[in-house]
Amino acid sequence: MASTVGQVIKCRAAVAWEAGKPLVIEEVEVAPPQAMEVRMKILYTSLCHTDVYFWEAKGQTPVFPRIFGHEAGGIVESVGEGVTELAPGDHVLPIFTGECKECPHCKSEESNMCDLLRINTDRGVMIHDGKSRFSIKGKPVYHFLGTSTFCEYTVVHVGCVAKINPLAPLDKVCVISCGVSTGYGAAVNVAKPPKGSSVAVFGLGAVGLAAAEGARASGASRIIGVDVNPSRFEAAKKFGCTEFVNPLEHEKPVQEVIAGMTNGGVDRSVECTGNVNAMISAFECVHDGWGVAVLVGVPHKEAEFKTHPLNFLNERTLKGTFYGNYKPRSDIPSVVEKYMNKELELEKFITHSLPFSEINKAFDYMLKGESLRCIIHMDG
Amino acid sequence: MASTVGQVIKCRAAVAWEAGKPLVIEEVEVAPPQAMEVRMKILYTSLCHTDVYFWEAKGQTPVFPRIFGHEAGGIVESVGEGVTELAPGDHVLPIFTGECKECPHCKSEESNMCDLLRINTDRGVMIHDGKSRFSIKGKPVYHFLGTSTFCEYTVVHVGCVAKINPLAPLDKVCVISCGVSTGYGAAVNVAKPPKGSSVAVFGLGAVGLAAAEGARASGASRIIGVDVNPSRFEAAKKFGCTEFVNPLEHEKPVQEVIAGMTNGGVDRSVECTGNVNAMISAFECVHDGWGVAVLVGVPHKEAEFKTHPLNFLNERTLKGTFYGNYKPRSDIPSVVEKYMNKELELEKFITHSLPFSEINKAFDYMLKGESLRCIIHMDG
Repeated sequence: MASTVGQVIKCRAAVAWEAGKPLVIEEVEVAPPQAMEVRMKILYTSLCHTDVYFWEAKGQTPVFPRIFGHEAGGIVESVGEGVTELAPGDHVLPIFTGECKECPHCKSEESNMCDLLRINTDRGVMIHDGKSRFSIKGKPVYHFLGTSTFCEYTVVHVGCVAKINPLAPLDKVCVISCGVSTGYGAAVNVAKPPKGSSVAVFGLGAVGLAAAEGARASGASRIIGVDVNPSRFEAAKKFGCTEFVNPLEHEKPVQEVIAGMTNGGVDRSVECTGNVNAMISAFECVHDGWGVAVLVGVPHKEAEFKTHPLNFLNERTLKGTFYGNYKPRSDIPSVVEKYMNKELELEKFITHSLPFSEINKAFDYMLKGESLRCIIHMDG
Repeated sequence: MASTVGQVIKCRAAVAWEAGKPLVIEEVEVAPPQAMEVRMKILYTSLCHTDVYFWEAKGQTPVFPRIFGHEAGGIVESVGEGVTELAPGDHVLPIFTGECKECPHCKSEESNMCDLLRINTDRGVMIHDGKSRFSIKGKPVYHFLGTSTFCEYTVVHVGCVAKINPLAPLDKVCVISCGVSTGYGAAVNVAKPPKGSSVAVFGLGAVGLAAAEGARASGASRIIGVDVNPSRFEAAKKFGCTEFVNPLEHEKPVQEVIAGMTNGGVDRSVECTGNVNAMISAFECVHDGWGVAVLVGVPHKEAEFKTHPLNFLNERTLKGTFYGNYKPRSDIPSVVEKYMNKELELEKFITHSLPFSEINKAFDYMLKGESLRCIIHMDG
């Protein structure tokens, strides 16, 4: 690989030219990494709802042409000035949010919301110089979440790169980059269900199932899956769900249904849909005195969370989490180790695989609700 | 005192005959304690906003005639059947909420919201037989919060009685019965400000000042008092407040003023007014990533807490507390010990004292905002 260091690399990327239109595999130029940047070869990437959401770009400032993708595994090709903790050949996961290790958030044990490298969905350029590292015939193609993994090579800020065990299979652990860590961390790091407790999980997509998996790993004995799509219930059993509630099958609000099933409420809940009504239900379904509700799903810009304050005063707690409260560089390598130690099963999240040339099919699978995670092989 | 055991005791009570009308000192009959009840001689009582609120009885089901009062110190006169852990002569604080020690809440380490004896503001009778122990010429006079301490003798469920150190001066520790523990516990048990942290306290009445005192005892280095009454700021310095914000002096919402003073928000906040807008401000003024807001003040029945859910997702926590999360029987004796060990100063909460015969003046002081706590001497 030494021959490419310092050079522009020409390679394939799946370019989104317009909102909602199929991606087009194009030859792009990938510039060398600048100061505090890393250029990596992507071997596997997977598709997450967030890619689809910003590709559809409804009600957003459009940033096109753009290279989407933020769940991936790769190998460092070269590093820019000032990068000392990564070297060519290192196995890495690019992460959509970063850890500068110097700001108040990075220095806080509790926060992972880095001031410098916190997720930015609108920015399509690198922070070093405000420019893109991608171009087609000299014209810029924009980044997405600082990762843009739908490309054979990408450039990422060093603060957004987790160096992982080189023995870990990248076609599995790539899903740790985003969705699985988000849900699993929400349960194990934030909701922290005690052994023998009851947990409600709202939304049984990949993030919600990862939350269920985290609840099970924490020793919860009842895990109630809540989803309006009953076809998800069978698969959810593999992730520890013991019971199911379809809110559409009940006249009563789902929080009352759950309270009725659990003698007053669950001990913990995790909300993974982003729907504000589900958030309210997830909060109001926890038991007074000790219940903790955790919000994970990203709400609509206009959403308003409303509840009677007495629901708080009766000793309920509501907290939100971002990326499962994991710090990307400090904590994600240990999540990979959980997979290596067989504490965390990733295979059951992976329902499909495709060659890179057929990446648009992965969008179809997700839009139809057929897939949890589809692994895209960049060499195909 | 042995002569009164099993007998009706005739003594003085301050009876509220009608909502909002001055109390009248009357001779009442106090029946002996029934099963699991304790009759105690009240030596000192103090007045709390909750007494005034239910005495005014605006928008409530009126329960009159009634004997108010719930902050007090006394001595056990006799006990009913089944009471084994208290005996005549024990020094006690009656508490407006109870601890049965057998329900899921009492068995939970986290909750103090006993299923059997949780505060009930509408009930004017004892739970044993649904009757009042107070009467005037044979006609019942109703209880308040199960305590009714504006009477020389009162009957209380054993689960609502904290047995305390007999060396503790009852004219001081009586304020631990309610307000001081509520605010102090909200800070030390729930907000738990780390050493060197910043804390905002909304509402500088006795409960808010107790929260400030708790924040100071926890090692907070900045304590920002928030109140629309600037006359409270000078006194608040004694309770650890280092800075003040009067929301009426700012055009910006107070949460933005506080964020500007603290580089993005305080580490902790405690809301002690019960005003829902103050609750929203208290939540939104905590720092993203790690901020925790604690609600203490009791809201209006129609109140609605509203915020953008992103305020949670940015890793803020909102929780409510009831009675500072103290369990009345298990924990309150240790709060009295904090006073005995000089960790908790009570004298600064006590701004006035009055003989029982002048109890209506205590209502005036509180309604005018002149007093924190007024100690009423039952022998006067």
